[in-house]
This record gives sequence, structure tokens and C-alpha cells, in this order.
Amino acid sequence: MKRLLAATAMALLPLTALSDTAIRATGDLGLVIERASGSLVLVDRSDRAALARIEGLGDLSHASMTYSPDERFAYVFARDGGLSKVDLLAGEVVARTVQAGNSIGGAISDDGRLVAVSNYTPGGVRVFDADTLELVADVPMAGKTIGLADLPGRRFAWAVWDTGEVFIGDFSGAEPAITSLGVAGANPFDAVVTEDASTYLVGLFGEKGVVAIDLWADPPVTTKFLKDYGKVEDDMPVYKMPHLQGWAFSEGQFVLPAVGRHELLWVDRATLQETGRTPVHGQPVFIIAQPASPYVWVNYATPLNGVVQVVDSRTHDVVKTLEPGRAMLHMEFAPRGAEVWMSSRDDNKVLIYDTRTFEKLAEIDATAPSGIFFTARAHQPGL
Amino acid sequence: MKRLLAATAMALLPLTALSDTAIRATGDLGLVIERASGSLVLVDRSDRAALARIEGLGDLSHASMTYSPDERFAYVFARDGGLSKVDLLAGEVVARTVQAGNSIGGAISDDGRLVAVSNYTPGGVRVFDADTLELVADVPMAGKTIGLADLPGRRFAWAVWDTGEVFIGDFSGAEPAITSLGVAGANPFDAVVTEDASTYLVGLFGEKGVVAIDLWADPPVTTKFLKDYGKVEDDMPVYKMPHLQGWAFSEGQFVLPAVGRHELLWVDRATLQETGRTPVHGQPVFIIAQPASPYVWVNYATPLNGVVQVVDSRTHDVVKTLEPGRAMLHMEFAPRGAEVWMSSRDDNKVLIYDTRTFEKLAEIDATAPSGIFFTARAHQPGL
Repeated sequence: MKRLLAATAMALLPLTALSDTAIRATGDLGLVIERASGSLVLVDRSDRAALARIEGLGDLSHASMTYSPDERFAYVFARDGGLSKVDLLAGEVVARTVQAGNSIGGAISDDGRLVAVSNYTPGGVRVFDADTLELVADVPMAGKTIGLADLPGRRFAWAVWDTGEVFIGDFSGAEPAITSLGVAGANPFDAVVTEDASTYLVGLFGEKGVVAIDLWADPPVTTKFLKDYGKVEDDMPVYKMPHLQGWAFSEGQFVLPAVGRHELLWVDRATLQETGRTPVHGQPVFIIAQPASPYVWVNYATPLNGVVQVVDSRTHDVVKTLEPGRAMLHMEFAPRGAEVWMSSRDDNKVLIYDTRTFEKLAEIDATAPSGIFFTARAHQPGL
Repeated sequence: MKRLLAATAMALLPLTALSDTAIRATGDLGLVIERASGSLVLVDRSDRAALARIEGLGDLSHASMTYSPDERFAYVFARDGGLSKVDLLAGEVVARTVQAGNSIGGAISDDGRLVAVSNYTPGGVRVFDADTLELVADVPMAGKTIGLADLPGRRFAWAVWDTGEVFIGDFSGAEPAITSLGVAGANPFDAVVTEDASTYLVGLFGEKGVVAIDLWADPPVTTKFLKDYGKVEDDMPVYKMPHLQGWAFSEGQFVLPAVGRHELLWVDRATLQETGRTPVHGQPVFIIAQPASPYVWVNYATPLNGVVQVVDSRTHDVVKTLEPGRAMLHMEFAPRGAEVWMSSRDDNKVLIYDTRTFEKLAEIDATAPSGIFFTARAHQPGL
């Protein structure tokens, strides 16, 4: 079955390279990852249309990307260590380096000059010139690096799976300055920075609990919270560790996906105390805040991944359950929240819904789509 | 002296129309208002450079603007009722209408399809097609309209100076649906919506206090707070009523400029209780949060307008006092906070500072510059 799906996926739906080189603004563009075929679909948000397919990106399972400050270039972090620079105006890959054997995500510095990649094999962080993709700094680590995030002042934070140690790298001077923040806990599997860059949140796989590091304190202060958080023996099987970039920050709260449970967990940002739980349809994967609203949208791990739910962050109640399509892998909001774009992998479509009426506005063909990334991310710290 | 300054200002510093029509991204562009000459300087944030001057915008004193979702077009609201659509890629005005005798600001709908303008003479709100600037709806009011702000779902909020009444207009259907939220108080002089679109904050001139309207409650709930806020007889003279778009929302607080006093007022967002005051250099005009930081930056009314201060929103302490130039009228941050651009009207320069080192990175010539508007505003609710 898995092989059949992959074979289907490889038959790309018709869409060619960018045919026109007309003058075009970049504020409403985006890229959709076609994970099985190593390709991207360039989309125009205003026209709700696909503009072109860009191929040759490598292994895009669990791929992510980040944008240059002018919203012209995407830096695509493939799973096979490939780092590609995509020009959205030309609709093509303009630079590419296979910089490690296995990598997991990256980030761009706050001034847009440096792109950092988080590597598994060999473990460490490599930093590249955003213009040329030339190697600027190589920071080996004692294991797999995870949770790479940009901090203000040409800095990045990351954690090391094998040792549990958290680091901040400052690349603003002539030489990188690397500072350890100590051991957060056993086997950090992912980490994120809050949208105000105040707090680095680290999820642990090897022990229970979540770690918050207050980056505004000098020196940074580490606090463990949700001390029961994580997998236990008699829980349901964990189909997928949740993505922490799917944590939402809403109404003074963090919203976390329970691990191996069909629940959302709500935590007060100021006190780090749990304030509630919401029973939901399945094991949450992404929990994403709808801008300019009190709502978060949630998708689920296989086999319950045909449903998307909307939850009110004030009452913690599910207010809407949608069944938009098969294998709903990701959701991305228009930056002011008017619509949501959702990937239905097994229907080979990106579905566009109005967030007020919950009506489908349009759909776009894409081959086994997963992550959707709008250029508006360029302006947000931590993305 | 005033006349001399104006005469100096009218002698525009050398800068021509956009000379190249090269392919260009729009995520890092911006416009600087040259108030005395009715012109704009198109700037490139990444290159820290002026690209072109755009002329013929009318009376730009107290002018503001908003951007299309693709970050290609600016809608400029002049004080003389002129509404101009500026194409940043072409560097020129592509549509213009003088739609009222006297207007004060405007907003763009969350889907980018409608532009609304807030008028003094005659009082009311006029709504235009964002593509063509054709009139779509005319909503007369019983007085001057102020504080026009976009709300999700093709809606706008505004208040009426003469009657104190607050309205929400819903333009999502075939006919506009206008709802009164009742009287907020005597002579609202400005209003803003919070960045999550939850709360409409109204400043009053005719009585003391500030009004918060909870738009997420059904029906909306109005609460008056800071009941001593406003001018009293023995206060210092009020050189300038503060702009409420200069209110910052930081660390769970609102930060308000005191009226006629040399103070910032801090209010807890959740309780609406005052939590502190910061003595500052002068009467604050704009208080703007530095993204990805705990800091707000403050400029001051004449005659103390040669100073800009940085205040820590955790301690409420002034942490830095800068004297960047003469008549510092406005500040705009790079969207991820790495640098701040500041207008020095009487030095005819826009000054660019690093927010970490407080060093000047560059300066750009502009004739009597006031407001600076980067295209990243396109993606922010309420701007």
C-alpha cells in the first residue's frame, strides 16, 4: 500500500515551469512541498492559483524552509542534507549544496544574511552565506542537532539529542561565539522559540516534562514544566512525535499536543501551570493559531488524519470539526487570518477554506502535498 | 522660522523617478512620507537605500498608508481627502481620487479587496474597490469619523468624534451592515485595534479615561479604564494629542503615552489596571514595540523632539537615551527587529540604527521626512 501510494505520487500532476517573467510582487506567494517527488509548487495566494512546479529538491520528507527578508528566496532544508535556494520570481533553484548526510531543518538570521542548518550526520550546525550558500561557519556537536531557531542579533539556538545540551551561537562577530546553556534533559526531540523570542521551549523524548528557557534573563533561566508530559507505557502507541513548530501561542497560553493521547494541553505562559485539557479527535500533530482570532486549528496523526478541528482558546472547546479530505498533513493561514490552506496528501490537493464560513473557496492540484509555506513567514521571528 | 523651514523643505533633495524596471521582490520595500512636499521616498530595506521619489500625493501632514496583501501597492490617505494607490514596482501613482474634503486615515480589509477611508468633511466612511478605487459603499455619519481599523471578515470599526458612538461595518455581503456599539464617551480622538483583533481601544478627549471594547464577546462588552487618563487644568500644555497607533502591546501590557505629562503609563491587558508609570524625557508621541524584544522605543512632542528613548517593558525603566537628530518624528522597525529607521525631519534624513549596539548603520536623504511604512505591515491585522 505504501509503495502504491508512492508510485501514484510520483506521477506528477500537470504543471510546468514558470512561463512568464512578468513583474510580480512577492508578498502573497508561497511554496507547497510535494514530498514524494522532491518538488515544490509555487502558489499565488491572491489568485488562489499554482504558478509553477520547481523540481530537483531532494528528499523532502519532513522538509521545511525559511524565506529571505525580501520574500524573494526560499531556503529549503531537505532531509538528505540538501540545502537549496529557490528564486520565487524566476521559479527555479538558483543555488544548491548537499552539505551533510542527513539534516533536519534550519533558520535564517534576523538580518537575512546567514542561513543555518541543523544536521544529524555528522551532528552539528553549519552556517552559510544567504547570497551564495558558501560555508561561513561549521560548528560540530557531540550528536544530532535539533530545534534550530533564529534569535535576534545574528544568533541561533539549538539542542543536541544525544547529550541534551542546549546552545546559543552568536554569529555577529568575526568568529562564532558558542555558549552552552547546560543540559535541558534526556533526548530533546524538538524545540521552538516563542514569537517574541523570549523563551526557548524544548520537548524531551527520554524523560517526562517540557523545558522553558527564559532567554531574556541574564544568564538564561531554565524551568521544567508539565512534568507528566510525554509517553508512558500504557499510553496509546505514538504514531508520530508532535512537531513543536505546531505549538500555538494564543491568549496568554501555550497549546501543546499530548503525546500518544487524543488531547490538547493548555499551559499559562506566565506561570507555566497547566490550565486545561481538550479531548480531540486523534493524536494532534500541528496546532496552529488562526491570526486575529481566538481559535487554533488542529490536524491529527494517521490513521485519524482525515479530520481537522477548530478549538476556542478561551473556552478550550472544539467549535468545529471538518472532514476536508484524506490525509490532512498541514495548514497555513493567510497572514491576517481570512483563509486557511490545507494539504490533503491522498487527494493530491491543497484545499482553501474561508475561516469564518468554513466554506471551501478553491482547491489547487498538487502531488501528495505536505508543508505549505507562505512568504509572510519572512517577517516573523522564529520562522 | 516655521515659514523658513517649510521653504527649505520644499527644495527637494535630489532623487528621481524609478530608473530601472528590473524584476524586484517587494517584501523589503517601504515608503517614507515627505510631508511638506506631498511626496514619498521609495526605500529598499535590505540595501538601506532610496530607490525613487514619487510626487503628487497632496497634503501629507498626518498622512498614513496601508499595503495590499502582495506588498505591491500602497494606499496613501492624505489629509486633503486624497486617496492614492501607489505601485511600488513601477514607482508611481497608478490611481487617485479626491474622495472627501478632509480625511484622516484608512484601512484595508483582511482579504485585501476593499480600502476604507475615514472622513471629517463630510463625516463618514467611504469604501473603495482596492483594484480600481471605485466607490463601493458610502456610509455617512453624524460627525467626524476617527480610528478606522480593519477587523476580520471584511469588517471595519470606527468612532465618531461628535457623538462618541462606535460602529462596526460589515462589508462581506451584498449590502453593508452597520452596527452601533453604543457611545464610548465624549469626543473620541483616536482608536486602535489590538494585534489579535480582540479589543478596540478608544481614547477620549472630552472626558477622562480610556475605553476598551471586547470584540470577541457577543455582544461586544465596553469597559472604561485609567479613569484619570487625559488632560487636567493644571497639567502641562498639550502640544500634541498622542497617536494611538503609537500604543505598544508588550509583555501582556498596553503602554500609553500620558497626555500633557512626561510619562508612559503601563496597563495590564487582562485586568485593565495600571501597573506602573515611567518618567520620560518629554510628552510621548509614538511608543513602538521593538519586535522580538522586551523593549519599546519612544519619541517626543516639540520642543523636546530631538531625543528617542528605549524603555524595558519588564522593569519599566529607561535603558537608553539617544539624540539621533533634530525633530525625530517617527520610527519603524525591521519586522524581525534587527534595525530601526527613524525620521529626522529637520536634518532631512532617515537614520538607520542597529537595535542591539545602538550604532548608526546608515542614513538616507529625504526632505522633511515624517512617517515610515515598511511593506511588512501588509501582513499585520490592524495596520
